[in-house]
This record gives sequence, structure tokens and C-alpha cells, in this order.
Amino acid sequence: MSKGITQKSQDYNKWYTDVISKAELADHGPVKGTMVIRPYGFAIWELVRDEFDKKFKETGHSNAYFPLFIPKSFLAKEADHVKGFAKECAIVTHSRLMSDEDNSIKVDPASKLEEEIIVRPTSETVIWHMYKKWINSYRDLPILINQWANVVRWEMRTRLFLRTSEFLWQEGHTAHSSEKEAREETLKILNIYESVSKNHLGIPVLTGKKSESEKFAGAVDTYCIEAMMGDKRALQTGTSHYLGQNFSKAFDVKFQTENNNEEYVYASSWGVSTRLIGAIIMVHGDDKGLRLPPSIAPTQVVIVPFFKNDDELNTIKNYINSYLENLSTVGVRFLFDDRDKLSPGFKFNEWELKGVPLRIEIGSKEIDSDELTLFRRDLNEKSSVSADSLVDYIRNTLNDIQSNLFNQADKFKQEHTFSADSYEEFKTLINGGGFVRCGWDGTESTEKQIKDDTKATIRCIPFDEAPSKKKCILTGEKAKHEAIFAKAY
Amino acid sequence: MSKGITQKSQDYNKWYTDVISKAELADHGPVKGTMVIRPYGFAIWELVRDEFDKKFKETGHSNAYFPLFIPKSFLAKEADHVKGFAKECAIVTHSRLMSDEDNSIKVDPASKLEEEIIVRPTSETVIWHMYKKWINSYRDLPILINQWANVVRWEMRTRLFLRTSEFLWQEGHTAHSSEKEAREETLKILNIYESVSKNHLGIPVLTGKKSESEKFAGAVDTYCIEAMMGDKRALQTGTSHYLGQNFSKAFDVKFQTENNNEEYVYASSWGVSTRLIGAIIMVHGDDKGLRLPPSIAPTQVVIVPFFKNDDELNTIKNYINSYLENLSTVGVRFLFDDRDKLSPGFKFNEWELKGVPLRIEIGSKEIDSDELTLFRRDLNEKSSVSADSLVDYIRNTLNDIQSNLFNQADKFKQEHTFSADSYEEFKTLINGGGFVRCGWDGTESTEKQIKDDTKATIRCIPFDEAPSKKKCILTGEKAKHEAIFAKAY
Repeated sequence: MSKGITQKSQDYNKWYTDVISKAELADHGPVKGTMVIRPYGFAIWELVRDEFDKKFKETGHSNAYFPLFIPKSFLAKEADHVKGFAKECAIVTHSRLMSDEDNSIKVDPASKLEEEIIVRPTSETVIWHMYKKWINSYRDLPILINQWANVVRWEMRTRLFLRTSEFLWQEGHTAHSSEKEAREETLKILNIYESVSKNHLGIPVLTGKKSESEKFAGAVDTYCIEAMMGDKRALQTGTSHYLGQNFSKAFDVKFQTENNNEEYVYASSWGVSTRLIGAIIMVHGDDKGLRLPPSIAPTQVVIVPFFKNDDELNTIKNYINSYLENLSTVGVRFLFDDRDKLSPGFKFNEWELKGVPLRIEIGSKEIDSDELTLFRRDLNEKSSVSADSLVDYIRNTLNDIQSNLFNQADKFKQEHTFSADSYEEFKTLINGGGFVRCGWDGTESTEKQIKDDTKATIRCIPFDEAPSKKKCILTGEKAKHEAIFAKAY
Repeated sequence: MSKGITQKSQDYNKWYTDVISKAELADHGPVKGTMVIRPYGFAIWELVRDEFDKKFKETGHSNAYFPLFIPKSFLAKEADHVKGFAKECAIVTHSRLMSDEDNSIKVDPASKLEEEIIVRPTSETVIWHMYKKWINSYRDLPILINQWANVVRWEMRTRLFLRTSEFLWQEGHTAHSSEKEAREETLKILNIYESVSKNHLGIPVLTGKKSESEKFAGAVDTYCIEAMMGDKRALQTGTSHYLGQNFSKAFDVKFQTENNNEEYVYASSWGVSTRLIGAIIMVHGDDKGLRLPPSIAPTQVVIVPFFKNDDELNTIKNYINSYLENLSTVGVRFLFDDRDKLSPGFKFNEWELKGVPLRIEIGSKEIDSDELTLFRRDLNEKSSVSADSLVDYIRNTLNDIQSNLFNQADKFKQEHTFSADSYEEFKTLINGGGFVRCGWDGTESTEKQIKDDTKATIRCIPFDEAPSKKKCILTGEKAKHEAIFAKAY
């Protein structure tokens, strides 16, 4: 089969690229750093997106849509924000093309814009400009808005799903009448991120707070979920920011309180992106390719028939049909792969590569014995199942695969999460890969020195930190925080 | 109440703007011509989008995502295509901002791009660039891909939902091994557009083919759905294009046939957009504001309680609760409006403005008599309904409202659709407003003369045309086609 992929253990980066390409998840677009999400990759994204969307709506959020284009001057209104995004902006300067003398197409210089336009790298500025129009009184609060959108950050070193010039995400932007409420919102969303990651994507995550140097440009506090990839590196898979009054001050958004005072509005913003698809590949994938948790598998069960001619195929169809109807009824997503000219072996490889959780193999032998052969992708194991119990078996096994993939990932994460008491030990552990928890004196200089020495960064300050008896892993000074360090994507 | 809107009959344009603003459907973004779709407007869009998405998937299409950014050179590859879009492009030329001496933010001239980038006005070019990589043989065909995306066309005269610089849409792009199949696809989609318009949006449409001058830049044939707005003007609400081999030739996309020949691929593309929200407003709206067909109403039933204190509110809640549970069970979307400090009258106006199809009014009188007061937004009529039959009544009435809104719109369209036998009659009819069907000699000069004289354009050449016995309405020459003329948005 031509779809062979690089072994994960041999070359992790090449393995990752191969899975994306051979499983037809994504491709590079013509403009450097852009990404095409192919139908199979997009079907996974739809299942991821819909689950988050459901949770956001259940907690009172509404979707809306704000413009792609932001006036240049807006970006500069919040000082940290512009510093964070100025160096990676796509800037629109003209609005018309024209034919040159030699009939080639060039930009019409007469169409130069009065003010340049930024293609949104994130939407705080344009949204807070609108919130100024919509918010007058405490009665207008809270505003709990989310949008699903594309954003652009001009990245030099790109990698499909993980870091591309344009990506898809959701960005929530909420406005509140008190710090307390805005902070609660920030953590409520972090909880949603954590639970959808675990229960839906099968990905265990660390949660905690970012250090000052790693927080969002414009935030007071940034909270995150961080996952461990199959090569033991960390990937930030979602962030939730408490923005305080930074944007309401920058955009002069005040509200009248119940006591008739005026106050600046409190804010949060939060996002997850198509980067999650990268995490799904790297957390669950193996040497055969993708392994998908059933809840985000576009096809949960593939049926591969063994047949030599149309008669045999029809016999199989007639036999399996009532079972498939039952699967439909209980909401299982299945596909009967009746393509001819392709061998069952070719199909096995293809669906294993694409990570379909369960495969049913069926030919005359199975029909005669009323015993079907099932293949579990999470364990790469076959078993026989009597036709009578097929539907129950599939439902139970899909649940089992869902938990098993999470448990495998959780075990891997736990096995590669360490604590360190000396800097030598720390360096050895970081070098071997994984998360290392230790004391940190809270200074940026220490954080930087550790990064220079080891390439590890602070992934988060965990919520359950107990720094009082700890010393800083680098300086030996009294620790201000416990921090979790790792090399990260 | 402060939410009063302009009467539709007094000033149709102002009425339209008022409905959008007061019903909080959309707002203007800071960059000229851009639009913010507010939560209520977006909730309608989600219901419109989901229905189309379901139909596309039922007919074998998959969603995918292609990049926002297109190299300038791509646009020029199809000659008609570039002519159609060159004058309304957003062009990205730089990738970095910097601080000026006076600390203001300016574009960093050193970040100038080697090749300018076009923000997609539509995605044929970038998609056919990718199809070249994906298509080799007839086995790779058909490709049936759709994407939901934002696109940008630099419009000078904008109007919310109808014509904005950025809008949301779906664009389908299919690739086929024969002209026959590609043409069938083009018309299959037109059928979906027509049936979703009628059955889901309650909007009757004309279907037919565009004239040469009105067709899509790059198409062989463009088919459309056209609706009649409340001011009797036409609005093109969807188009489906047979592209022939224009884009496969421009991007050199050939496939190996079953007979081992090489042939260029055949194509279709098709789209509907947030413009549909404008059509919904203008087809169904009345002097009180929006009227929403139940199938696209975010809230189908609003319950407005009459209460003076919490005790009274709780009594009402306890009374209505079991009915609401039953409504949930049968999938009716309802909202219990228990906001205090707002009078029932204020709420009535607000929900009428927002077009909620059914309202239940309930206070102590209704509880005592077990008779609830219901208000139908389509008829602006109240009736009494016994509590026992409430759920059945609501289900039936929602269905009835759905058909009634379509029937009202269809009657209006029929009453303002005419045929004309002389140019004088034609001009009088066009001047009075509506669709006029007549013979046309098929020349662009006639089409242009009629437009200059009357501002009417050919909306479509209907599928059931019978031009053989007709004469051209302008020239009196033998008609080549029957055409439907109207003034359009």
C-alpha cells in the first residue's frame, strides 16, 4: 500500500506530517503558512466545535459575528495588546487591481486606503468598540458573546494545525459589572475547556495560570489548558483571560451602576482553535496513524465486506442491513465500504490510518457462523462477536474505546510528569522529556535563564501550588510559586 | 416605548434600517462597509445555515476550509474572473507594524510582501489550485465540497445584509468527470436553494438562468433564485454556476478517464449568503417589525407573565411549568420572559418587533379560567386557548404560521407579477413595481437600453420560457427568450 507512514519512534515530526497528509486531514495553501482543512479533517473539527458550542450555549452564551477588518488605530489603543501583535499582522492597504501596460495585473496605486486595515489577529479591539455602543447601564450586562471565526497571525515558522498564518477558532468576549463575575466567567470557561478535552477529545490537561511573560497581550491574568503530546512536549490547547478593565479603559466603556455611579466594565476573553486537531493527532496517534476517540470520529464503525462479485456483496448487504438500521437508531456513525477494485487489506490500512475506532469484517465465513470479526483501533486487536449481540457490543465498546484512549493518554502524561529538587536533576528530566514541577522564585530573569539553558518554559502555575516550603530550582531562593516546566510547541 | 420604527409604507428603506437596528439584528462595523451580526441576527443565521448544511450533507457534500488569502497572480488566471473582481478587492501588502518616532503606529515598510495577497472575494482560484494536487484519475471524482466562510468585496454603496464589504456565505465547489454530471449538480443545488427558501424561510422564488451580462465572472451558465421584496423589487438570493472547464483549464486540472484518456475536469460552484437575512426581513416584515417563520425563529413562543411581585410570578411559573416541559419534549423553542421592571406592554412590543411567531399571555385571570391568551404575529390577532389543548394548539399553529407566511408572500409575488405586450405597458408596469415577463431579442444592447430607460434588469430567463411566438418587448424583433425583468437590489 502506498499510504505507509514514517514510524512515530523514528522521526516524530515526519510521522506527524505523514499522518496529516496520508489521512487527508489538511494540506498547505498556496500563500506561505496558510492551511487547507480537507473534508476528513474538517469533519473532525465539526464534532469538536459542536461540543464546545453546545457547552457555551448551555452556559448562557450566544454566537455573533464581528468584522474581519480592524482599523490600524484600534490596535494601538491598548498598549500591551499592540506590542503583542504588531509584528505578525496582515495589513490591507489597497482596494483595487488594474491591468498594467503589458496586460499583467498590478495593484492600482490610486486605490490606496486613507487608513490601513489590520486583518484581525484576535477581536478584542473591534468588539470593545462595539460594546461601547451597546453598554450603557448595569441592565445591559453581562454580555456573553462568542464567535467562530478565522484569524490571521503572520507566522514565520508554521506547522499544520499547530501554527499557521490563518486558523479557525472560537473567541469568547464577555462584559461584566464586577471583577468577581468576570473572574468567575474566566474560570467557568476554563472548566469547560478542561472537561470537553477530557471527556470528548480524550485528552488529559494541566490547568493553571500563565506567568507574566507568557500571558495574553492585554490580559490581567491568563489561564490555560496544557496537554502532553506523544513526544512528551507540551502544547497549549486553550486559554481563558481575565482582562480586568484594560479594554474597557482603552475603549472608554463605562456603565451606570445600580447606585447610579459610573464604572468601567470588567471583561474576559477565551479561545480554542483548530490547533486541537494537532493535539488529537499527537496525543492519540500511533505507528499506523490516527486513533480517534469515538465522540469525535466522523465514522465510528466501518464495515469492510469480503466479496468477489455483486452477488456476494448483496448477500452481505442483506445480512448486515438490519444491524445497520439498529446502529442508526442508536446514533452510531457508520460507513459500509463497498468500493470495488480495492482489496480488504487496502481498506483496513486506510481506515486504520484514518483512526476509525471500530471495524467490522464480514464475508461468507462470518455469515455462516453468525460470528463477526471486530477490530478495535485503540488496542489494534481483533475479536469475534456473535451477530445477536452486535449492536450492544458496539455501543459498549465505543464507550470503552473512549475511556481507554483517555486512560492511555493520562497514564503517559503521569509517567512523564516529574518533580525536581536540584537544577541538575531538573535539566536531566527536561532533557528526557515531560513536565517538571518545581519551585520558582517568580522572576522573569530566572524564567529566561531556564529557557536559555534547557528550552523549557513555564507551562503553568498549577492551581494547587504550595510554594511556601519550596526553593527556586535555579537560584535556591525562597520560591514564590510552584511552576510546571516543559519544552513546548 | 422607545423602540418605535418607521412605517413600512412611509419610507421602506428607513423601515428596513430601523428593523435591523431596533430588533438588534446587526450593526455597522468600524471599517466602512463592514457588518456586525448581533446575537439575535446570528441565531437566525444559524437556523438558516443548519438547514442548508443538512441538505448539502444529505446529498453527499462534505465541508472543508480553504485559505482566506489568495496570491494576486491566481486571480488573473481566469480572464473573466479577474475582470469581475479586480475593482473590489482588499489587498494585503505588508506584514508588520512599527512605532514611529512620535510613538504612533505605522506600517513597517521593510515588511512589504514579494507578491501581494488578495483577501478572497470567492474561492474558485485557490480551490482549483488545490484540486490540481488532489485530482489525477476518474477515481478521484466527483469532489463535492462546500465551505462556510467569510468573503470580502470592496463595495462602495453598502446596506446591512444586502451588500457589505465582508459577508458570510457558503460556497460549494464541485469537480466532475463529465459535463452532464456537473450540469446535474448545478441544478440539483438550485433545487435545494429553492426548496429551503420555500419550506424553511417561507420565501417563494423565481428560478431560471441569468443573461450573459448578469452571469458570474468565470461561469458558462449561472442559475439563480430571485425573490420579491415587500417593495416589489427583486433580490437575487442564491446562485448556482455551471463553470464548464474554465477553471480546470486555467489551473490545468486534468484527469485520466476510464479509457485512459486525459480530459479537463468539469465544475460547478454555488452560494447563498447572509443576504438571506435581508430577504427574510423584507419579505415577511410589517409595520411592527420582523415576522419570522417558526422554522427560523430562535424563539418560537414567548411567554409573557402579568405579575406584580415574586409570589405572583411564582404562581404563574408553577402553573405553566408542566406545559413548558411538554413544549421542550416536542422540540418547540420557547422563552419565559420573567424580566421585572419592564411592563407586559413593553415586552409585547419588543417580541413583536423581533418577530416571535407566537406569544402566550398569562396572569391570574388566565390561571383562574384555565384559558390562555395567545397572540399570532403573522396575523397580529389574539385568541383564547384552553390550557388542556395548549401544546397541540401551539404545534399546529406554528405549522400554520409557517404556511401562512409563505402563502402571504406568494400571493404578494403573484399579484405583482405581470406580462407585457408593448413597451409602453412594460414601462408602466415596471414603474409600478413588480416582475414583468416578456419577450427579449437576446441582445445585450436591448438589455442595456431597457435598463437605461427603466432601471429594470433581467432577473432570469425562466425554465418554462416559450419564446417562439413572442416578440421582443423593446425592438419588436422575434424573441430569442422570454425574460423576467424587475428593478432589483
